[in-house]
Amino acid sequence: MSKTDTALPEPMREALERGKARWEQFDDLRYVRMTDGMGGHAKGTVCFPGRPLVAGYPHIGRIFRLERGLRQQFAGPFWAEEKLDGYNVRLVWVEGRLLALTRGGYVCPFTTDRVADLLDPSGFAREPDLVLCAEVAGPDNPYSLGSPPFITEDVRAFVFDMRWLGHADFLPAARKRALAEDWGLPLAPLFGPFVADQWPEVRALLRDLDQVGREGLVFKADGPGGRRAKYVTRFSGLYDIAVRAPDLVEIPGDFFTGRVLRLALYLDEEGARPDPELRERLGAAFLDGLFDSLDGFKREGRVSHTFRCRFRERANAESFLLHLREILGHTHLRPRRLEREGAFWVLEFDKEVPKMTGLLHQLYQGAALVD
Amino acid sequence: MSKTDTALPEPMREALERGKARWEQFDDLRYVRMTDGMGGHAKGTVCFPGRPLVAGYPHIGRIFRLERGLRQQFAGPFWAEEKLDGYNVRLVWVEGRLLALTRGGYVCPFTTDRVADLLDPSGFAREPDLVLCAEVAGPDNPYSLGSPPFITEDVRAFVFDMRWLGHADFLPAARKRALAEDWGLPLAPLFGPFVADQWPEVRALLRDLDQVGREGLVFKADGPGGRRAKYVTRFSGLYDIAVRAPDLVEIPGDFFTGRVLRLALYLDEEGARPDPELRERLGAAFLDGLFDSLDGFKREGRVSHTFRCRFRERANAESFLLHLREILGHTHLRPRRLEREGAFWVLEFDKEVPKMTGLLHQLYQGAALVD
Repeated sequence: MSKTDTALPEPMREALERGKARWEQFDDLRYVRMTDGMGGHAKGTVCFPGRPLVAGYPHIGRIFRLERGLRQQFAGPFWAEEKLDGYNVRLVWVEGRLLALTRGGYVCPFTTDRVADLLDPSGFAREPDLVLCAEVAGPDNPYSLGSPPFITEDVRAFVFDMRWLGHADFLPAARKRALAEDWGLPLAPLFGPFVADQWPEVRALLRDLDQVGREGLVFKADGPGGRRAKYVTRFSGLYDIAVRAPDLVEIPGDFFTGRVLRLALYLDEEGARPDPELRERLGAAFLDGLFDSLDGFKREGRVSHTFRCRFRERANAESFLLHLREILGHTHLRPRRLEREGAFWVLEFDKEVPKMTGLLHQLYQGAALVD
Repeated sequence: MSKTDTALPEPMREALERGKARWEQFDDLRYVRMTDGMGGHAKGTVCFPGRPLVAGYPHIGRIFRLERGLRQQFAGPFWAEEKLDGYNVRLVWVEGRLLALTRGGYVCPFTTDRVADLLDPSGFAREPDLVLCAEVAGPDNPYSLGSPPFITEDVRAFVFDMRWLGHADFLPAARKRALAEDWGLPLAPLFGPFVADQWPEVRALLRDLDQVGREGLVFKADGPGGRRAKYVTRFSGLYDIAVRAPDLVEIPGDFFTGRVLRLALYLDEEGARPDPELRERLGAAFLDGLFDSLDGFKREGRVSHTFRCRFRERANAESFLLHLREILGHTHLRPRRLEREGAFWVLEFDKEVPKMTGLLHQLYQGAALVD
């Protein structure tokens, strides 16, 4: 055990010893990241030496039926918070600066660079032990291909949870809302509270969200260990398929069949049946993106996606590229440009879709595969 | 090792010792079935004591591009044989009777009962060491939900390969055709021979098959170790999805994404693009069958499929039910009726789709699942 390790609280020392955590570095800051869950601590739990743990963000179960699901999951009141299509970060105040941690527990050079554009960090001077959990969403993000339709450029952040350093539990919704108002923080849209008997109101809310192309809701009961569950719209199922169909064989097929099942159970609970328009939308979700990949492959010999994002500091863009290379492997990342545009450094890069590329390469060559 | 084991040829003795083969029984006949591949012998290889091995039927690789695939796989001439949508059996003459082995190597009581209706077995008196490999297809079969559109009742058999007992290689197509003519056996439609340069003719043939709702072709080069590859139509991809969508979560999602990929590569090679009709057909393939399952589940509390088939002998129907119970487990098989109708005993039974039933049960109860 190194001297630095002894400055760490448990369970991080044990996690390091058991190979379930790793030292990482961002700028001159070293920190430990849990690479697996251990003893009730979630994967992605992070420790900056000398500071309490930043708990990992837990996975939230999904219900496929609204009425029965709410009745089954929530004996008491719950809030309904809009689920936004972006990536999950935890924002923590460390040695006088605000850092953004990804779900896996890395300091994200992109989000950290842009965090002051996304929300006002001044409240952390008063509450340096607060952790903000936020969804970062928008077309100019370096991680996810989708984006909520109402964000037409760059990225925005939506705080959906708060907790104290060293704690895994979240603050009650009223406290979260009050703090957000006080600090002027952008919150994910929050509805309620409801009780399960009010499911028709929740259903109406979901129909409105579905109409405008939104993902769904996360239901949250207050209090330590308060239950949580998510439920997504008809739109969400179709959208997920369309966004990932270009990568059809890159991810397990169950990703797609799971979405088809969600969609069918949503329609069924609405009393709807498949109709020509919906069938065509589902068929298009699978085929159109897949044809984009075939076209791209025939043009460039590979399947890839182009990402674009803006940085304040050039060094952060470079550090972000290094970070991605480490995660994706050198061969699957191709920087396209890094150029100054006004107050920003604009980074564009391609992420290759390696299994899809490899399979299409084989198949277009005429390979025979046993399935 | 029992005394009976010593009467077995290798590799069956070794396979039994290593737990890769099992003794089975049909009527008063005992035989050994290879439950795993071993040392180049395919799973489903069977031995009747005192007789040479019945080699397992090998898996045939699939090409996704016709022109490149044929050029890549076939340096010389090959035959194109219609691929029919049924189940694979091997017919062997044992102690004066014709037995049908399933791909897994069980004696199938149904096919064995009906084999004399499917083809004339009299040739086996002259060639008792011949093995016929055949597809049994039609709506009244107890295994597969689909059926070729031109078979409107009962089942039919189509011989597509012949080999000698004790040999894994197949007879050349000309010999197969001559023997079939001589014996009056029904052959799977056989086209060719072709060479790869004639791929436009093969393509035209596939278009014709696609138009009338057929699966595709199996390409076979003659000679020991002759190459084989299969290629399926646009129709086949859509049809497979439609037939299995009611069982959406019962099988790996890759089953479905693989079919979508085949479909897209077929269209792409045809120079076609997704159009509204095709999108709607694909969406319908996923959704319509899945809704049938939801409806069935709400009505009966489970997802199941009803099968119907006809036997000559009541004892064979009973033996078939026992066989299915063993394969499926007792709880997943529900006999509906076994009644005399003219010259036949008609058996109807339901096969439950257990994972689908279990998952829908959970979801309709309001369970939350982490995905």
